[in-house]
Amino acid sequence: VALPPVRASKAREDLTSAAPAGRVAPAAATQDPPAPPISPVDLEGVRERVDRALASLVERRRDQLDFLEEDAPPLLAALSQAVLGPGKRLRPAFVYWGYRAAGGEPHGPGAELAIGAGCAVELLHACALTCDDVMDGSRTRRGRPAAHVRFAGLHRRERWSGDPEGFGRSVATLLGLLLSGWAEQAVVEAGVPAERLPEVLGLLDLLRTEAIGGQYLDVVQARRGVAGEAEVRRAVTFKTAKYTVERPLHLGLAIAGGGRLREALSAYALPLGEAFQLRDDLLGAFGDPAVTGKPFGQDLREGKQTWLLLRARRLAEPAARELIDRSVGQPWLRGERLDEVCALLVECGALAECERRIAGLFAEALAALDAAAPPAPARAALTALARYATGRWR
Amino acid sequence: VALPPVRASKAREDLTSAAPAGRVAPAAATQDPPAPPISPVDLEGVRERVDRALASLVERRRDQLDFLEEDAPPLLAALSQAVLGPGKRLRPAFVYWGYRAAGGEPHGPGAELAIGAGCAVELLHACALTCDDVMDGSRTRRGRPAAHVRFAGLHRRERWSGDPEGFGRSVATLLGLLLSGWAEQAVVEAGVPAERLPEVLGLLDLLRTEAIGGQYLDVVQARRGVAGEAEVRRAVTFKTAKYTVERPLHLGLAIAGGGRLREALSAYALPLGEAFQLRDDLLGAFGDPAVTGKPFGQDLREGKQTWLLLRARRLAEPAARELIDRSVGQPWLRGERLDEVCALLVECGALAECERRIAGLFAEALAALDAAAPPAPARAALTALARYATGRWR
Repeated sequence: VALPPVRASKAREDLTSAAPAGRVAPAAATQDPPAPPISPVDLEGVRERVDRALASLVERRRDQLDFLEEDAPPLLAALSQAVLGPGKRLRPAFVYWGYRAAGGEPHGPGAELAIGAGCAVELLHACALTCDDVMDGSRTRRGRPAAHVRFAGLHRRERWSGDPEGFGRSVATLLGLLLSGWAEQAVVEAGVPAERLPEVLGLLDLLRTEAIGGQYLDVVQARRGVAGEAEVRRAVTFKTAKYTVERPLHLGLAIAGGGRLREALSAYALPLGEAFQLRDDLLGAFGDPAVTGKPFGQDLREGKQTWLLLRARRLAEPAARELIDRSVGQPWLRGERLDEVCALLVECGALAECERRIAGLFAEALAALDAAAPPAPARAALTALARYATGRWR
Repeated sequence: VALPPVRASKAREDLTSAAPAGRVAPAAATQDPPAPPISPVDLEGVRERVDRALASLVERRRDQLDFLEEDAPPLLAALSQAVLGPGKRLRPAFVYWGYRAAGGEPHGPGAELAIGAGCAVELLHACALTCDDVMDGSRTRRGRPAAHVRFAGLHRRERWSGDPEGFGRSVATLLGLLLSGWAEQAVVEAGVPAERLPEVLGLLDLLRTEAIGGQYLDVVQARRGVAGEAEVRRAVTFKTAKYTVERPLHLGLAIAGGGRLREALSAYALPLGEAFQLRDDLLGAFGDPAVTGKPFGQDLREGKQTWLLLRARRLAEPAARELIDRSVGQPWLRGERLDEVCALLVECGALAECERRIAGLFAEALAALDAAAPPAPARAALTALARYATGRWR
């Protein structure tokens, strides 16, 4: 079964060293386009506008936490890192372009509301990342220590009593609860008109409930092991496709007051979100830690039930399959054995199938976007975002 | 230093075997009144109305989680236990009586909104209890297994892979995030008029932020050890007094549209909330597990920095103080040594001082209520609630 580990390395290289695929360009979906000057999350300045709004939001939260006095600094630092650290702001981009798809103006009060709703989703995302790192025991996030690791470090430096890791987990969880709770307030403070507030808050609630439910499915499946295709796709639909693409677009529509495109944009969002997750799975298995910010093979060690793994189990020879089943979900899966498993995922054809499936889902999403026929700028941006979200480099 | 453990047992008995002190009665604050027919949380049927609204809310959430399919039952069962399990519904009672204090009618649409806002606070409380149990590593809640313990048990029974305790903590945290997120939705779904929604949601946000901040102070102080009086009182103000009494009352005022009493009710709420925490500290140190639902001495083992402990450090002889400092915050603090420490807390006069302080704060709260002069039914109810919240039996 031992395959030359060079195969896995080759797959890693192909996946991470390609030219940025997420830039706006008229190139075909299956081919990496040349790098043009602007990333799709930056179209109409969305990323910068979101970052500005998030910074002012964090400022207001700092004032609200003044009562913590001398104990405030570590929590405020973690808050800033969680919200204002580097991020693609992909979900706010979908909120904004959902708003523009429904005919919203690029500037003025409506646009500010869309940016505000985007911030709400970004706060939920900061919560999700903070809590996921606690649940997965991930030590790093975007190449820096995860929040729970920072607080465990504080505990050690100060030589406090008790278990530093437990303390780190506790404070990171409190931070997650704060971030999640502020999402609603981001919408309220953005000034969403009172009569539209119940609908917008209802969507935010749905987005959060679905994301948490999807994460629950993911956690259960990783522990139970060997999931079926329907199960895996269900988790992906809720923890990723609805959370990352569909509900943000719906939020944008609700802000613009235009529900007409709701179904049509779902038809674009759901295949795109699934393709986004498949790309994430490939990066999780083969991605360079310097790019993904996560250590090699973490998803495989955790036993994450991905579509990639599911296909590999179907396609692999019995001996290879047995090796995969004995290795996935094992905390010791590192070094040569990890390389061997990665090589098997390539060798059996699962990686190639995954790439084909991404391309197919991408095409499906674009066809749905064609049918939805939003105004030209939204159509161009949603096309570029689809390429970006499913591309090898993002 | 060894005192007869009978002293601690005696204190426990005094604290837990007295006749219910929380019943409505004209008796003096410092004396247990005879038991009358109705508990103050049941006045005007508030507890039952809240329980009914919570049950219908959980029903709607069940439908929303249908997508979890065969994985739904364990999460739904934990959700029901967290929200619909036995509870005093003290915070919803303060919301309701804040509403009545501002002149709200006991029945009709306004009252339903107050009950809905009470449910929101109760959902946040269910989140707090679920997450606190994870943070403290408490195995039981109200005498039953805590949520994280139930999920760890599921993991073991199903013989899943990985660490059962880690799985239990992860799922309990997800449950906490769900509960917290649903608070806003409880207010929206109750039908709070659009023009009042921003204020009500703002108060809910403040309540949550203060409670989480207070809990953060509490966690830090327990690990750092030996806190000063100002520090301890700050944590108590935010994690208890504002969270349990002041903000619920303010929510009720906002529902009734009457901000006139805001300051006056704060003057009632803050001393009362502090007294409530002092009673909780006494129950935490001396309370019967059968009544408190928590094992003997848990607060002392965790090193919780309470006012009781602070006074004991001031009042105790050097040898006794040294024994206290060497024992508090130690996971091995059980059995005879625990009895010894409890006896010292009594012997040095800290328990008696705590009782005197509770009586003083109670009197302060009632004087403020007098000055606020709300309508007679609200005044009677808030008096009874104050007695209930600070009484030896609740």
